[in-house]
Amino acid sequence: MTTPFVAVLMGSDSDLPIMQATLDVLRKLEIRFEAKVTSAHRTPAATHAYVTDAEARGCKVFICAAGLAAHLAGAVAGITTRPVIGVPIDNGPLQGHDALLSTVMMPGGVPVATVAIGSAGAKNAGYLAAQMLAVGDDDLALKVKQERQQAAEAVQAKDAKLQAKLAE
Amino acid sequence: MTTPFVAVLMGSDSDLPIMQATLDVLRKLEIRFEAKVTSAHRTPAATHAYVTDAEARGCKVFICAAGLAAHLAGAVAGITTRPVIGVPIDNGPLQGHDALLSTVMMPGGVPVATVAIGSAGAKNAGYLAAQMLAVGDDDLALKVKQERQQAAEAVQAKDAKLQAKLAE
Amino acid sequence: MTTPFVAVLMGSDSDLPIMQATLDVLRKLEIRFEAKVTSAHRTPAATHAYVTDAEARGCKVFICAAGLAAHLAGAVAGITTRPVIGVPIDNGPLQGHDALLSTVMMPGGVPVATVAIGSAGAKNAGYLAAQMLAVGDDDLALKVKQERQQAAEAVQAKDAKLQAKLAE
Amino acid sequence: MTTPFVAVLMGSDSDLPIMQATLDVLRKLEIRFEAKVTSAHRTPAATHAYVTDAEARGCKVFICAAGLAAHLAGAVAGITTRPVIGVPIDNGPLQGHDALLSTVMMPGGVPVATVAIGSAGAKNAGYLAAQMLAVGDDDLALKVKQERQQAAEAVQAKDAKLQAKLAE
Amino acid sequence: MTTPFVAVLMGSDSDLPIMQATLDVLRKLEIRFEAKVTSAHRTPAATHAYVTDAEARGCKVFICAAGLAAHLAGAVAGITTRPVIGVPIDNGPLQGHDALLSTVMMPGGVPVATVAIGSAGAKNAGYLAAQMLAVGDDDLALKVKQERQQAAEAVQAKDAKLQAKLAE
Amino acid sequence: MTTPFVAVLMGSDSDLPIMQATLDVLRKLEIRFEAKVTSAHRTPAATHAYVTDAEARGCKVFICAAGLAAHLAGAVAGITTRPVIGVPIDNGPLQGHDALLSTVMMPGGVPVATVAIGSAGAKNAGYLAAQMLAVGDDDLALKVKQERQQAAEAVQAKDAKLQAKLAE
Amino acid sequence: MTTPFVAVLMGSDSDLPIMQATLDVLRKLEIRFEAKVTSAHRTPAATHAYVTDAEARGCKVFICAAGLAAHLAGAVAGITTRPVIGVPIDNGPLQGHDALLSTVMMPGGVPVATVAIGSAGAKNAGYLAAQMLAVGDDDLALKVKQERQQAAEAVQAKDAKLQAKLAE
Amino acid sequence: MTTPFVAVLMGSDSDLPIMQATLDVLRKLEIRFEAKVTSAHRTPAATHAYVTDAEARGCKVFICAAGLAAHLAGAVAGITTRPVIGVPIDNGPLQGHDALLSTVMMPGGVPVATVAIGSAGAKNAGYLAAQMLAVGDDDLALKVKQERQQAAEAVQAKDAKLQAKLAE
Repeated sequence: MTTPFVAVLMGSDSDLPIMQATLDVLRKLEIRFEAKVTSAHRTPAATHAYVTDAEARGCKVFICAAGLAAHLAGAVAGITTRPVIGVPIDNGPLQGHDALLSTVMMPGGVPVATVAIGSAGAKNAGYLAAQMLAVGDDDLALKVKQERQQAAEAVQAKDAKLQAKLAE
Repeated sequence: MTTPFVAVLMGSDSDLPIMQATLDVLRKLEIRFEAKVTSAHRTPAATHAYVTDAEARGCKVFICAAGLAAHLAGAVAGITTRPVIGVPIDNGPLQGHDALLSTVMMPGGVPVATVAIGSAGAKNAGYLAAQMLAVGDDDLALKVKQERQQAAEAVQAKDAKLQAKLAE
Repeated sequence: MTTPFVAVLMGSDSDLPIMQATLDVLRKLEIRFEAKVTSAHRTPAATHAYVTDAEARGCKVFICAAGLAAHLAGAVAGITTRPVIGVPIDNGPLQGHDALLSTVMMPGGVPVATVAIGSAGAKNAGYLAAQMLAVGDDDLALKVKQERQQAAEAVQAKDAKLQAKLAE
Repeated sequence: MTTPFVAVLMGSDSDLPIMQATLDVLRKLEIRFEAKVTSAHRTPAATHAYVTDAEARGCKVFICAAGLAAHLAGAVAGITTRPVIGVPIDNGPLQGHDALLSTVMMPGGVPVATVAIGSAGAKNAGYLAAQMLAVGDDDLALKVKQERQQAAEAVQAKDAKLQAKLAE
Repeated sequence: MTTPFVAVLMGSDSDLPIMQATLDVLRKLEIRFEAKVTSAHRTPAATHAYVTDAEARGCKVFICAAGLAAHLAGAVAGITTRPVIGVPIDNGPLQGHDALLSTVMMPGGVPVATVAIGSAGAKNAGYLAAQMLAVGDDDLALKVKQERQQAAEAVQAKDAKLQAKLAE
Repeated sequence: MTTPFVAVLMGSDSDLPIMQATLDVLRKLEIRFEAKVTSAHRTPAATHAYVTDAEARGCKVFICAAGLAAHLAGAVAGITTRPVIGVPIDNGPLQGHDALLSTVMMPGGVPVATVAIGSAGAKNAGYLAAQMLAVGDDDLALKVKQERQQAAEAVQAKDAKLQAKLAE
Repeated sequence: MTTPFVAVLMGSDSDLPIMQATLDVLRKLEIRFEAKVTSAHRTPAATHAYVTDAEARGCKVFICAAGLAAHLAGAVAGITTRPVIGVPIDNGPLQGHDALLSTVMMPGGVPVATVAIGSAGAKNAGYLAAQMLAVGDDDLALKVKQERQQAAEAVQAKDAKLQAKLAE
Repeated sequence: MTTPFVAVLMGSDSDLPIMQATLDVLRKLEIRFEAKVTSAHRTPAATHAYVTDAEARGCKVFICAAGLAAHLAGAVAGITTRPVIGVPIDNGPLQGHDALLSTVMMPGGVPVATVAIGSAGAKNAGYLAAQMLAVGDDDLALKVKQERQQAAEAVQAKDAKLQAKLAE
């Protein structure tokens, strides 16, 4: 029997500093994950083998990060029918606009759940994966709700600081 | 006890011709759904009430379609911690480019799973919702795989026609 | 009886360095204001409560600043019928282009008075709020005219410096 | 003594079919207005004379519509310190993207309250002008609230139709 | 021993009306070709099998046409080291801008020789393939030069018509 | 009798570092010029007065530089029928894309001769003004030709350096 | 001795319907002109020969229209030092945005005086050429001023119609 | 008899730091090349002479790099019928978006094989030229395959490092 986990793929190790935010969210929510550097273009066979094997071993959600003509999420979405989350990376001259369009504009039948370009998207990929797993896991659903509550409290703490500053 | 379902929200009834593709996919895969016209800006209270109630009644995934400064998906994502899928609609002068950016560029902590602008995205919103539900539903997972298989066969049938045409 | 004021909302305290320009203009024109960090997505209920309360307490104009998929101004415009000014912030990879479209492309019935991206817009949000209040306040109208006169004199002073430099 | 009114300026009579929506909103809300075809580039002197005279005669808000390198709103904003609303018109090859940037990206000190490109913006220019006038006019403020209420009811009526259709 | 040929792949049979221009150029220059409908996302295994087999059977250049998040050319370029020409198709709401960026912005090591969006690109894909084959084929090089000469004469014929018209 | 000259207007003294390139070209070609800081929006009356007076005193070409919603060139083109050259400045978050569209997309009847964004455009504004004046001034025409010849020689000198480097 | 004239070059005869506006303006202002279909890419030698010969025969201004990667104006600007006006044509999928950037973003030393995309630009190319020739021709300068005056009167006539319509 | 080689042209010596990647790839694959600084606009005659001569001396592929309104690749493609590879350089305010469109959107009949903007494209231009030459050179084809294999191994090495890091 397989243990559920999330697979976090990135096209290059230069994406790791941004994708660290994804790993941090998954760790905080105590979600098992694997991370892997693999390329849709340079190692298509290894990518295919990994995705097929990961799905068989219990991978429930794939998160794929890539820049430029970002094909990794789409390529993975063509191999598996598990949900695939795409994170466009802004590591080239067009600020991730190319990566966004290459990730989100998928043709009918092969969706990629696309999040924001760069660091906001990396963080959200972790939360979105958690939300997907929480559809069938009430404990995780509760953790996600608590996390959201903490984010709300953080906003209110920032507001309190602003009020203090304005009152000076 | 609640029965799981998908809620399909659209900002205007003029989005229905495009969003019909979502409803068709959900019907084909025998997934229960509700559809509703509601606006993030004109009926924010009704939107909030519906989302809260729907989550309590067992809604597992929200699909939200809107054009222009498309806030509906983001607004719903701020109310619920269930996964929210956003479909940018191309009903204004900027061809949905505004709706895409308004839907996908969500700040950290509140993800929207964004699909392609317009009809390809509407179709994929249905498939993505199915993939999310299938994480905990092996029967549905099988149906999704069969659907993908049929899409592959449709491509091959189109290729057969092209070969016949070239052989004329 | 209520005292009129302007409410300046920002989605994050990281917007404060840019929005300081708004506060400076309001202070210079002796317009009462409140500033608050609140988020359309992370604290929608607190945002709703504040806006409703502020309107009841005499808030005449709302100024809302946000980046990325900037929904704050639109969300506030859906709660109140007081004029809402939106300032798109350039704090992400797309230089505020996403925030601009998310703020300005509002559907019919719920306008947001949008100003320029970033610091020019922050300054102008203050002036625009003053112009709105001055519709019914002749003293303020005079102050706004004097401020414009000073801006004209500043341009002429810069030209005088250029002439001096060219004459060297 | 002057009677307050709104001035609706457009760069060309070809903008009238779109700007009719502005006039309809103003009429519905029983706001006095004048409409005028005048060009920032072809009739700058006439534009200047009209704006100066209109302000003296009691014009409280200017609405300016133009396409392409849309300078009309900015030019009017340089003449008057009354609030100026800009409506970018999509009548050229770039779908109003040029008109949007030419209208909204005003430098510090001379704001233009910009609304959406085209018909949504034309409608909203009327509502925004009403909101500005309503800051000092409680009767008008009430009318604006009622109008918003009707828009909410229209959304709910559309939803009722959708429910009826789905129940067939 | 293998006979050299060009393979023309398209993601959908709806691309054929545009890609007919490629086939016409290849026929005119008497270059052997195969055409095939195959999808990077819906039939990745079939695409992989075809490309591997075609290369073994003597395919010297691949031409790949796709719209939206156009991954076909990049996917093929990841399988073969023969030159791959990419034709971005303008069949979605963003006029092929998405397809252009998805095709051309390939990461280092896996080039796609990208031509213009749509019909101009479809025609040029044929010519570019011919130019590549002509590097080692002097007869074909001559034909390409003659074709260019005819294009020049066509321009001059159009100019002659214009002169006649102006002289009327 | 008037002496011909070129007027170089800029919306802000912060444009001077870029526009220095224009002044340098005019000086090198021994063309008389005046430079002035003036704003289409903050000092419209002073701008109008200067342009009218300059034309009367013999100004033959106007060069106008501005950023953001760059209206200066268009405003000047509406006052004079002398040729107006527009230089879009990249001093805001959109890298001059807004300034380019605001300058070049002028409606029929009021042209602005637009050059490239930023420093390349500033240099070229000087050369273009020289070319315009050289239409009726054979001595200047010769100088412009010599300048172009020197630019060609500079390219060849750079190539010589490259050859030397490659030969090392 | 040579007679001054304007040369109007277009990359394709399909540009003529748009460029007819240029020819009409030149005819109306009684400016001698030649028109020619010639291509920067398909007939570079013929283009070079024509431009060199035209300059020798008295051509004072070149107007060049092209679409897509519009190189014609830049190519002509590299051959002659007479002023070159570029008209970007919107005949491809990107609505002339490609032609605009290809025409206006010229490197330092080789300016192209760029006007608006499409029909507004075509008309303005004629007026701009007239303004350039009028620098040394007072009769033509007067005609250009009269033409501008007529354009102003046309705006005022349109306004009169609007006033009549509103008074109904 | 001629020896085959690749010609690498660049519009300015400031492009060399980026284009060094092209030269490095060609050297590594032991492909003969020449590099030259030449400008489509400043030295069109020298460019023409070089291209014609190089083709006669055995140049089989041209690689052309330029920024802004990048015409060099198109100009060279108009002179020779050998394959021309275009590298858009991001050296101006628009991040190479202008150079990309100026290079790739070539009209029918005169293709430019366009690669990615900047350094990824520079590297790929070398590989693409090698792929073209390898069509008729089995030894080179083998080297290209080995190079690709090494790129795959580099990805796997990076993944190994990531696994080690995650296992810490």
